[in-house]
Amino acid sequence: MNINSRTPVGVLGASGYVGRELLRLLGGHPGAAVAFATSERAAGEELDGMPLIRADDAPLAQAEVVFSCLPHGVSGRYVHAVRAAGRRAVDLSADFRLSPDAVYGLTEFARPRVAEAELVANPGCYPTAALLALIPLAHRGLIDASREIIIDAASGVTGAGRNPKRELLFGEIAEDYRAYATGNTHRHLPELQAALVREGGFAGDLVFTPHLLPVRRGILETIHVPLTRVLDQATAEGILAAAYADETFVRVLHGRLPSLRDVVYRNLVALGVTAVGRVRRPRLTIVAAIDNLVKGAAGQAVQNLNVMLGLPEAAGLPC
Amino acid sequence: MNINSRTPVGVLGASGYVGRELLRLLGGHPGAAVAFATSERAAGEELDGMPLIRADDAPLAQAEVVFSCLPHGVSGRYVHAVRAAGRRAVDLSADFRLSPDAVYGLTEFARPRVAEAELVANPGCYPTAALLALIPLAHRGLIDASREIIIDAASGVTGAGRNPKRELLFGEIAEDYRAYATGNTHRHLPELQAALVREGGFAGDLVFTPHLLPVRRGILETIHVPLTRVLDQATAEGILAAAYADETFVRVLHGRLPSLRDVVYRNLVALGVTAVGRVRRPRLTIVAAIDNLVKGAAGQAVQNLNVMLGLPEAAGLPC
Amino acid sequence: MNINSRTPVGVLGASGYVGRELLRLLGGHPGAAVAFATSERAAGEELDGMPLIRADDAPLAQAEVVFSCLPHGVSGRYVHAVRAAGRRAVDLSADFRLSPDAVYGLTEFARPRVAEAELVANPGCYPTAALLALIPLAHRGLIDASREIIIDAASGVTGAGRNPKRELLFGEIAEDYRAYATGNTHRHLPELQAALVREGGFAGDLVFTPHLLPVRRGILETIHVPLTRVLDQATAEGILAAAYADETFVRVLHGRLPSLRDVVYRNLVALGVTAVGRVRRPRLTIVAAIDNLVKGAAGQAVQNLNVMLGLPEAAGLPC
Amino acid sequence: MNINSRTPVGVLGASGYVGRELLRLLGGHPGAAVAFATSERAAGEELDGMPLIRADDAPLAQAEVVFSCLPHGVSGRYVHAVRAAGRRAVDLSADFRLSPDAVYGLTEFARPRVAEAELVANPGCYPTAALLALIPLAHRGLIDASREIIIDAASGVTGAGRNPKRELLFGEIAEDYRAYATGNTHRHLPELQAALVREGGFAGDLVFTPHLLPVRRGILETIHVPLTRVLDQATAEGILAAAYADETFVRVLHGRLPSLRDVVYRNLVALGVTAVGRVRRPRLTIVAAIDNLVKGAAGQAVQNLNVMLGLPEAAGLPC
Repeated sequence: MNINSRTPVGVLGASGYVGRELLRLLGGHPGAAVAFATSERAAGEELDGMPLIRADDAPLAQAEVVFSCLPHGVSGRYVHAVRAAGRRAVDLSADFRLSPDAVYGLTEFARPRVAEAELVANPGCYPTAALLALIPLAHRGLIDASREIIIDAASGVTGAGRNPKRELLFGEIAEDYRAYATGNTHRHLPELQAALVREGGFAGDLVFTPHLLPVRRGILETIHVPLTRVLDQATAEGILAAAYADETFVRVLHGRLPSLRDVVYRNLVALGVTAVGRVRRPRLTIVAAIDNLVKGAAGQAVQNLNVMLGLPEAAGLPC
Repeated sequence: MNINSRTPVGVLGASGYVGRELLRLLGGHPGAAVAFATSERAAGEELDGMPLIRADDAPLAQAEVVFSCLPHGVSGRYVHAVRAAGRRAVDLSADFRLSPDAVYGLTEFARPRVAEAELVANPGCYPTAALLALIPLAHRGLIDASREIIIDAASGVTGAGRNPKRELLFGEIAEDYRAYATGNTHRHLPELQAALVREGGFAGDLVFTPHLLPVRRGILETIHVPLTRVLDQATAEGILAAAYADETFVRVLHGRLPSLRDVVYRNLVALGVTAVGRVRRPRLTIVAAIDNLVKGAAGQAVQNLNVMLGLPEAAGLPC
Repeated sequence: MNINSRTPVGVLGASGYVGRELLRLLGGHPGAAVAFATSERAAGEELDGMPLIRADDAPLAQAEVVFSCLPHGVSGRYVHAVRAAGRRAVDLSADFRLSPDAVYGLTEFARPRVAEAELVANPGCYPTAALLALIPLAHRGLIDASREIIIDAASGVTGAGRNPKRELLFGEIAEDYRAYATGNTHRHLPELQAALVREGGFAGDLVFTPHLLPVRRGILETIHVPLTRVLDQATAEGILAAAYADETFVRVLHGRLPSLRDVVYRNLVALGVTAVGRVRRPRLTIVAAIDNLVKGAAGQAVQNLNVMLGLPEAAGLPC
Repeated sequence: MNINSRTPVGVLGASGYVGRELLRLLGGHPGAAVAFATSERAAGEELDGMPLIRADDAPLAQAEVVFSCLPHGVSGRYVHAVRAAGRRAVDLSADFRLSPDAVYGLTEFARPRVAEAELVANPGCYPTAALLALIPLAHRGLIDASREIIIDAASGVTGAGRNPKRELLFGEIAEDYRAYATGNTHRHLPELQAALVREGGFAGDLVFTPHLLPVRRGILETIHVPLTRVLDQATAEGILAAAYADETFVRVLHGRLPSLRDVVYRNLVALGVTAVGRVRRPRLTIVAAIDNLVKGAAGQAVQNLNVMLGLPEAAGLPC
């Protein structure tokens, strides 16, 4: 690897599921080279041939862009250190997603700002899928703000991290399925609401309920959208398809719904739409699928890197 | 097994997942003995020591009660033959669930009618869980009929039957998850609506969306309930707990939500409740869990048998 | 539960997978009542309605028989305390399996000694299946001691315990499979060898290689047996069937091999046999299946309890 | 895609698991372009943008090399047609693996012959892993031919094909595990024996027992090797490492064993070695892991294509 011809980047927190996915993607990236990678628990070991060091020992200035995959609450401090070292940062934690100091990096709706950004807050996995499904409809005034948008989302367990917890053991998760953070208590809800107001002008209520699936990766969101007027399936598909006609990483399916199989290991949100019958007021059901580790985290981070560096947006990304 | 001291029963369609579960439950039932069991594809073989014959060869009159686990559309004809032979029937297919000729066997709300019934239409798996969650609230006028009830339900694959289909292969289902029958097109919706009007007086709109889980058995339903007035979690739990205080097979959890683990292999619906924050109008989220093969099918059928025969309702049933 | 008419028993270490299975079995046992149950991590909580206390607080003398499901290395100390309190013990750890002070509780071959025992060392899960497969052949001098017996065994993850470890997370285990403790380094090998000498008179070499399966429970052992003379399948099946003709908990299949499905949730070892073709010297392959938590642990412990108390051996046991 | 600058290839039988994997690999291949793809069941549909036609309609002459992923027994006829059309063939079925008319395409040991071949018989998945583990040892006379090599192999279900069969349903496979084709009756055994004689000079006995794993893809083989002299782990690793020092697609691990995770989605055989203790005669246990669909089928077929066309051997292959 000729590190000189590629932009040096750093990865803080490389040994969790997101960090490893990011290292894997960067390992095949034609325009970036990993200058350092950190792990508190595995410092001194190697990961895919990369020596792991402690975050406090990271030579931040040797990278032009530093990714942080550190945990929420911890990440912020290191991101400040990156900025203090005069380097640009992409933070994959939740620490800056509601902060005016960062650009919210939902790439498809934020390219000019990401290109200039010193600090990109990479969106959460759940919000990424929901926002790409909803913004085009909200933008056109098609969502009835007097009724609630209901989002039931189900995620594979890599979304819950790689720290050993009893409730994430195979013996507990296999053959089980459950809801969690019910009642609108999940951290991603405020992020989703804020972005929906900002990008789509929608200020109505949301009910967001995540679930834990016995699969390794992937998120499926079933999004119940109250409409201001009747839309049949073809028209709704057409609106989404037109909105994303030039996008590489958003795919609108015609006449079918996505499943996890369509998106895992890809930097892709797949969207499918159904008009709802047997109800008095117009409604759509949108199903959005995403790989929580790729377009929901590391992949979108690389997509943002590409925009920041002026590289082709798909460089190093599977789709 | 002394067949004389037990009521002889027959099982039509014994080799599918529901039929096998029913045979298993009846095998341990203190008051019933299986007089015959049928299977078109396995006629001539044995199942748990029981010889399998063709449905057309079944000696219907030798049973006092005949269960039909035959497919929808096929079952009706055989149930008519059971009735013509002067025997009582419990039909586990959908063929009579909307028929005035049958008693809809949601046991907890239909005991006197089931006790007298010549023909019981055993409820569908999805409706059973939803109805037990909703009826007590509907009955008290707590559900806002001007807003839609949204039900996202996820089922293990035994709910899709045992006939070989490519989309049900392990290689297709493992690590996948998907919605199906979106847009209110599932067969169970009219059944659910009719029962909710009849038992709960609720005639508002429903949106019902089933999903296919990579697990063998179990259903989890996340039920979004618009309320006519604010209910906090404890109050809502209290209403459900009071409604089912005398019930063996409905469990209202306090301060936590059920998962599949709580109900598989049991004749049980488990219910958990959360009040929804960050919305302008009052809402509850109810999570209902059930084993699709037990309380959602064969178990409830045995529960109905017990009521029909005047036996203890829990005879032969795990809870 | 009328505790007076049942023998009081205690459970040390009730919150692991084995301990919970044992509590579940004892909960349905007609002749035993749980007087206390301990858990270090969950002391103060309840498990299936049973309050959990710390092991050091256990009123050992209140039980007639005390089960220990404590970890290897820890269990021994508490078992000594049970004995010092004048109570009988069934130890499910490995601490006494090679000790002359304990009766090795492979029930089918140890009934008279178990009936009198003050301390029963409950066999390991892997040895139980292998010994029941091999002893009848060894006993008849059919195994060629000049060639190695090769045992490849695969276990569900509950066999690895319920303590949170990264390598047991769902995200690590799902879609994976691996060997471990290769090269004859597993703790169960000496136990297996000692019992095979003692019960079968076989002192040849063994190669035992365990593997970790992405399933919750169940063990399958593929046992390659060098023979002193040719045995066809029917003859070999006949030898095993004759050896276990009076046994409730050993099932010899005819013309087919067992899979995990045949044994999970049952106190059962299922055995299938195949003669090996295309080799110069006579060989059998035996496949043995067992539920690691039932006949491989808690179920066999209850079977031993029944023998110790003079109860029917199948009391409280699913088969 | 500029089809002119790439060699046109055809795929017979593109809609099974192997065919789809092959199409996926060829879709990203820099030197090959798919001229046609066939499927009997999906003719008229598209797969990854490629129109599917019936095999009888395939314009064989438009391809320079034709891959056949047709079923055993069917493939041979079409391969003859390919040859009659003057085109080269890579047959992924078993139809020519024992035929003198084909080159057995275990690439690492057959490059000169594959380069010239008109017909390559692509090795079976199980033999590929076993042969790469055993040939270097056999070649050096290290395997004791007076004792049997015992191979216990476990495969993910995609190895059993994509035709709908009841025993491959998710409801049957999940949480289960079983042996099949015991007693040396599997089709791959003669293939394995023939190649081991030819490439390694080993004519001793083998016992090969396949198992079916509840995972989608991947094979793990636990290979018990009787040795002519003692080899410690480091020496054995060294022998294998030296044998494959120049190979891209065989990885010898040091001090650890491979699991499926190491190889899925890669064109790779990973090998790990352990010396066996507590036995009288010297023995090794080798664990070999492979993705049944990649290095075990489609990937090795592309590797052979690359050799046939004089392209870099790793072109289009993930490792």
